[in-house]
Amino acid sequence: MYSQTFEKLVAQFTKLASVGNKTAQRYAFNIVDMPQNEVEEFASAMLEAKKTIHFCKECGNYTDSDICEICRTRDKSLICVVSEPKDIIAIEKTKEFFGVYHVLFGAINPMKNISPSNLKIKELLARLDNVSEIILATNPDIEGDATALYLAKLIKPLGVKVTRLAHGISIGSNIEYTDEVTLSKAMAERKEL
Amino acid sequence: MYSQTFEKLVAQFTKLASVGNKTAQRYAFNIVDMPQNEVEEFASAMLEAKKTIHFCKECGNYTDSDICEICRTRDKSLICVVSEPKDIIAIEKTKEFFGVYHVLFGAINPMKNISPSNLKIKELLARLDNVSEIILATNPDIEGDATALYLAKLIKPLGVKVTRLAHGISIGSNIEYTDEVTLSKAMAERKEL
Repeated sequence: MYSQTFEKLVAQFTKLASVGNKTAQRYAFNIVDMPQNEVEEFASAMLEAKKTIHFCKECGNYTDSDICEICRTRDKSLICVVSEPKDIIAIEKTKEFFGVYHVLFGAINPMKNISPSNLKIKELLARLDNVSEIILATNPDIEGDATALYLAKLIKPLGVKVTRLAHGISIGSNIEYTDEVTLSKAMAERKEL
Repeated sequence: MYSQTFEKLVAQFTKLASVGNKTAQRYAFNIVDMPQNEVEEFASAMLEAKKTIHFCKECGNYTDSDICEICRTRDKSLICVVSEPKDIIAIEKTKEFFGVYHVLFGAINPMKNISPSNLKIKELLARLDNVSEIILATNPDIEGDATALYLAKLIKPLGVKVTRLAHGISIGSNIEYTDEVTLSKAMAERKEL
């Protein structure tokens, strides 16, 4: 509307999750209305975050070092298995889990051709030494349940206790967006598979 | 949570209109999950838009040249007066206005110490040569109405026809967010003050 550069910026904003054209336009106006130095700060914060943040070599969490802070400081005998790094934030907010995490980067989904071999399951098995319990915190949907069952069948024979977050998480929802109270409850009432 | 660089990016996103902490975090994740080259494109689109877009010297619209395209190509005998550059987009969408615009950059508001002298009214008066009609499209709220009345009293004695968008725009709302149909109607039924 105003210029190609404006339209380009609008197009960039629509790449963000659930941002439509109207919202993107509003954001682009915010940028244009900001003082020059603030726009520069914003742009460099973006590049800086992208440059410094990658996945923890041990668990798959986002981190700005080789091994994330959780892996460096917490009880490694307890591993909470999640689908995505984002799920870790939600569980950390409950302040009721003191072990470490393992990110699968997905869930078993035959419709999308995601089989166990596409997930970080080998890497999980390699971490089972001295582990007393595996808590499965995959999403409470078909794919998450299938992944949990698959992992339970795989890990239980190895003599490791395997639990799953208690239902209480509403079915069909996302771990990432579940409120702390519900997640706390689900963590406290986790049951052995 | 992950690192200072991540938190900094989240803080930047909260500067956008009505973006809270949770949404900002989601956007920051989107950035971190994007390929490196896309983040670079995004950041440079931001800087580029900020660098090239400023206000039209004639009307106050956003533009990437000295004089905006509307001022360069359209009928200058008809001026539509708006409070903010963003309002121009909404009116342009009706496709029923073929004149030029004038941005006041605000509205009279004694509570916020905004008096006529804080608005681009002198600049509007300087543009009245050969103008056959001034359409007042300030917001249909107390400040917008006061501004319209003030301008009507000022301009009518100069022999220029002054009209105001017809009511039909719902009271208390914003021009920027009004749908095209309502705005079209208001434009067609504008009445002389």
